[in-house]
Amino acid sequence: MDYKSKIRTIPDFPKEGILFRDITTLIKDKEAYSALISQIADSLRGLNIDIVIGPEARGFVMGSAVAYAVGAGFVMARKPGKLPWKTKHIEYGLEYGADVLEVHEDAILPGQRIALVDDLLATGGTARATAQLCEEMGGEMVAMRFAIELLELNGRDLLTGYDVESVIQF
Amino acid sequence: MDYKSKIRTIPDFPKEGILFRDITTLIKDKEAYSALISQIADSLRGLNIDIVIGPEARGFVMGSAVAYAVGAGFVMARKPGKLPWKTKHIEYGLEYGADVLEVHEDAILPGQRIALVDDLLATGGTARATAQLCEEMGGEMVAMRFAIELLELNGRDLLTGYDVESVIQF
Repeated sequence: MDYKSKIRTIPDFPKEGILFRDITTLIKDKEAYSALISQIADSLRGLNIDIVIGPEARGFVMGSAVAYAVGAGFVMARKPGKLPWKTKHIEYGLEYGADVLEVHEDAILPGQRIALVDDLLATGGTARATAQLCEEMGGEMVAMRFAIELLELNGRDLLTGYDVESVIQF
Repeated sequence: MDYKSKIRTIPDFPKEGILFRDITTLIKDKEAYSALISQIADSLRGLNIDIVIGPEARGFVMGSAVAYAVGAGFVMARKPGKLPWKTKHIEYGLEYGADVLEVHEDAILPGQRIALVDDLLATGGTARATAQLCEEMGGEMVAMRFAIELLELNGRDLLTGYDVESVIQF
C-alpha cells in the first residue's frame, strides 16, 4: 500500500513553518484505512495486549480500531476535564506547548499489558507521558505504534527502552 | 452480553440533575467492547457503507472501530478549528448548549453511502446536524447507530426518516 500518496501535506499548520501531515485523507480511504489498521494490529499479535490506549483525539481513531482488531479493550487518554469520573493525570511538554493528559483511576489495572497507538510520533512527549501514566497505575507498556513518524524530530530518543514502530516515515 | 452492568452511572455530570452514562468502563472491557463493535457492524452488513462518520470525541472511538469492522473509511466530525484543511460546518442546538461541527470539504463525496456511529443518542441534535452536513455534501445517510440511547429524551423524534438503532437503552 502506497500510504504516502494518501496523506495530505499542509504548510504552516498549526503554525508557520510546520509541514502538517494530514492523515484524514488516508483514514477516509477504505482500502488504505483497512490496510493501515491491519498492519498495526499484525505487529501486536502474540504480545497479549489487554488494553490499547490512545491519546486525544486522533489517537482515539487509530487506537480504538486497533483495539478491536486485536481483541483488546480501549482506554482514552483525555485532555483535562473531559472524563466524567475520578482521574489520574500527568503534565508534560508538548511540541506546541505544555499539556496535560488524564485517564480514569480504574482505566488500567496492575499487570495489564498495554499498547499505545497514535497517528503521529513527533517529539515523543505525548507517548512518553502516556506510558508514564500507565506505569504509575501498574500497567506494562508493551508496545508503541504510530501511523506516521517525523524522523527529523527524533521522537524515539525520548522513548528509549520501549518497543516502537511506525508505518509511514517522513 | 449484559452491557448495562459494564456501564458506570455518574450523578450530576456534566451538571446537576444529569445521570451520566459512562461508557468508558464498557470500552476498556475487551469482551464487552468486541461484542459491542461486532454487533453494530453486523447491523450494517449489506448496506454497502462507504464512510462511517463519528462526532467528536467519543464518536471517534466507536465509529473508527465500526468502520474497520465493515471495511469502510472513517471521517471525523470535529469541533471548530481542529481540522487542518478547508472545512464545511454546521451550527446546531445541543443538549447542554449550542455547538458547531466541521468536516473537511473533501471528506464526503457525492453519492457515498454514510453511516453515523456515536456512543450516545440523547436529544438527537448532534446526529441530525451531522446527517445534514453529510447530505449538503452529496452523501446519503444510510444508517445511524448508537451504543446507548436515553429513551426519555426522545432523540428519535428529531431523526424521523433515518434508519436508527441503538444497542443499550436507558
